[in-house]
Amino acid sequence: MNIYDIADKAGVSIATVSRVLNGSPNVSPKTKDKILRIIEEEGYTPNVFARGLGLNTMKMIGILCTDVSDIFYAKAVSVVENALRQYGYDSLLCSTGYKLGDKKKYIDLLLNKRVDAIVLIGSVFQEESDNSYIEHAASKVPTIIINGVVDVPNTYSITCDEYQAMYNNVISLVKKGCHDILYLYDVESSSGIQKLNGYKAGLKDCGLAPSARLILQVEKNPTTINEAVINLLDKNIHFSAVLASEDLFAIKACHALMSRGYRIPEDISVIGFNNSLLCECAWPKLTSVDSMVETLCNTGISVLRDVFDGKTVTHKMTLSAHLVERDTFKQ
Amino acid sequence: MNIYDIADKAGVSIATVSRVLNGSPNVSPKTKDKILRIIEEEGYTPNVFARGLGLNTMKMIGILCTDVSDIFYAKAVSVVENALRQYGYDSLLCSTGYKLGDKKKYIDLLLNKRVDAIVLIGSVFQEESDNSYIEHAASKVPTIIINGVVDVPNTYSITCDEYQAMYNNVISLVKKGCHDILYLYDVESSSGIQKLNGYKAGLKDCGLAPSARLILQVEKNPTTINEAVINLLDKNIHFSAVLASEDLFAIKACHALMSRGYRIPEDISVIGFNNSLLCECAWPKLTSVDSMVETLCNTGISVLRDVFDGKTVTHKMTLSAHLVERDTFKQ
Repeated sequence: MNIYDIADKAGVSIATVSRVLNGSPNVSPKTKDKILRIIEEEGYTPNVFARGLGLNTMKMIGILCTDVSDIFYAKAVSVVENALRQYGYDSLLCSTGYKLGDKKKYIDLLLNKRVDAIVLIGSVFQEESDNSYIEHAASKVPTIIINGVVDVPNTYSITCDEYQAMYNNVISLVKKGCHDILYLYDVESSSGIQKLNGYKAGLKDCGLAPSARLILQVEKNPTTINEAVINLLDKNIHFSAVLASEDLFAIKACHALMSRGYRIPEDISVIGFNNSLLCECAWPKLTSVDSMVETLCNTGISVLRDVFDGKTVTHKMTLSAHLVERDTFKQ
Repeated sequence: MNIYDIADKAGVSIATVSRVLNGSPNVSPKTKDKILRIIEEEGYTPNVFARGLGLNTMKMIGILCTDVSDIFYAKAVSVVENALRQYGYDSLLCSTGYKLGDKKKYIDLLLNKRVDAIVLIGSVFQEESDNSYIEHAASKVPTIIINGVVDVPNTYSITCDEYQAMYNNVISLVKKGCHDILYLYDVESSSGIQKLNGYKAGLKDCGLAPSARLILQVEKNPTTINEAVINLLDKNIHFSAVLASEDLFAIKACHALMSRGYRIPEDISVIGFNNSLLCECAWPKLTSVDSMVETLCNTGISVLRDVFDGKTVTHKMTLSAHLVERDTFKQ
């Protein structure tokens, strides 16, 4: 079945079929309906069909993230856009905010713009009670999820093994004699839960019990993190190491500790997460888990290319993280 | 002139005019042309006209920036998006990269999507030898420029007085006895040139001559900045203060200095620029110029609202920056 067959079957010219596939308005509604019906009967969506024919698709990918001012998301968006541009595709970015209704709206918007695929960035997309909007998106176009897993056909998830990374952090710290490890995190996103579970499992496998007093939920605000740690010190709650779900939390913990005369890492070891630009700005420079955002994103776009090329592609890929040693902890 | 007049003049129903204004395909090309011609004769673009009538516009604003992974741009994009969302508008973000051709392409793309306005973020949009693409955009929809000035009808520029801010930094430092001020910057964007000129003018007005050896162009890379400053110290080039066009440069200068035993601010004062998240992560925490990115962006959207409402709006607004004192310099 090619464009000639469709034109034949519809009794119209090839140019007319092309106009319909490209969304041109200069086709009567009746003719347009007929052509779209024939294409649908063949089991193709117009987009996929047009691409297969090498016709003018929009060459446009929709990207969704919740907040582009987040340092991790900003980096991810930038890498995805660059990879797509090199592949000849444009990007439309929607920063959705955290409301489910807005996410649905933006998915519809991107589908109406006839994007060729959708890339979702962040584990936040996997934890909705209702992910029918992702199912809807994936029924129309391939949907890539960076750092999150959604079990829906035509979706492709690329994640980093954050559970294992945090587990490994605990093992390394305990080996160095740190048994009381303060854990700092903010939200219970699926990514947040993975890391917290890795921390607990690491302690358990070392024969240690997690202490509720050493698991501290903080707000993503430099001042309040600082105060929360100072507050622990004032209560004489002892700890010999700090693990954080984000670099910022680790850095502000360092500040709180240094302001009370603790030396890092001599007195207390600290490990951050994400290996962001902040690590190089901190003093001492922060040891942090590289959560492989560049590799995740580039792999995601490489998976998308394979999907477009009709190759068989695995629906779930997990990459392992690694520790970047700087000055706040050395193995 | 309202929708009824146009329908009368074209000899069609109001519904047909509405369909044309909303880009519905179910209108014959002949009728569509006639209606658009009548609208054009009245001097309205369809978009503005539709909005004035309270019709269903796309309620969508196009945002362009060169690189969303830049910490300043990411913040600006996020503030603009939030302000637009509160105002009931969606955002389409295009991260264009630094090539002129790509910027043109994205402007066309946004105009084809029938956005109601375009917001350009960054002084980089003002320094092209050829800004006809901005002229083209502004001939179709109101165009807001955040932190840059383009002298073209239907554009609205909101900038921060970076020249004055850097000038003031020099005056403050000289007052404290710092006469040899190292200046760190990366690119000669128009924003970069403003700041550098402010630095030079400040010195001149204090009766000091800028020294070429103390004006250091660096790459935006933590390691190379560190090495550049170490290199100066090795050459025994004396300076008693550091001014930087970006926080990152100031922070890495602090690291280089501290690694050589200098105390900050006792031996050397340091001031950054942008008042980014990095300032709070640095140790000592970085004194920095708040370049008012939130206010610039919110003012930009407020100007856009006034333009939509048909109010008389100034085409150029300049806000003054202010110094946020932390631990690397106190007045």
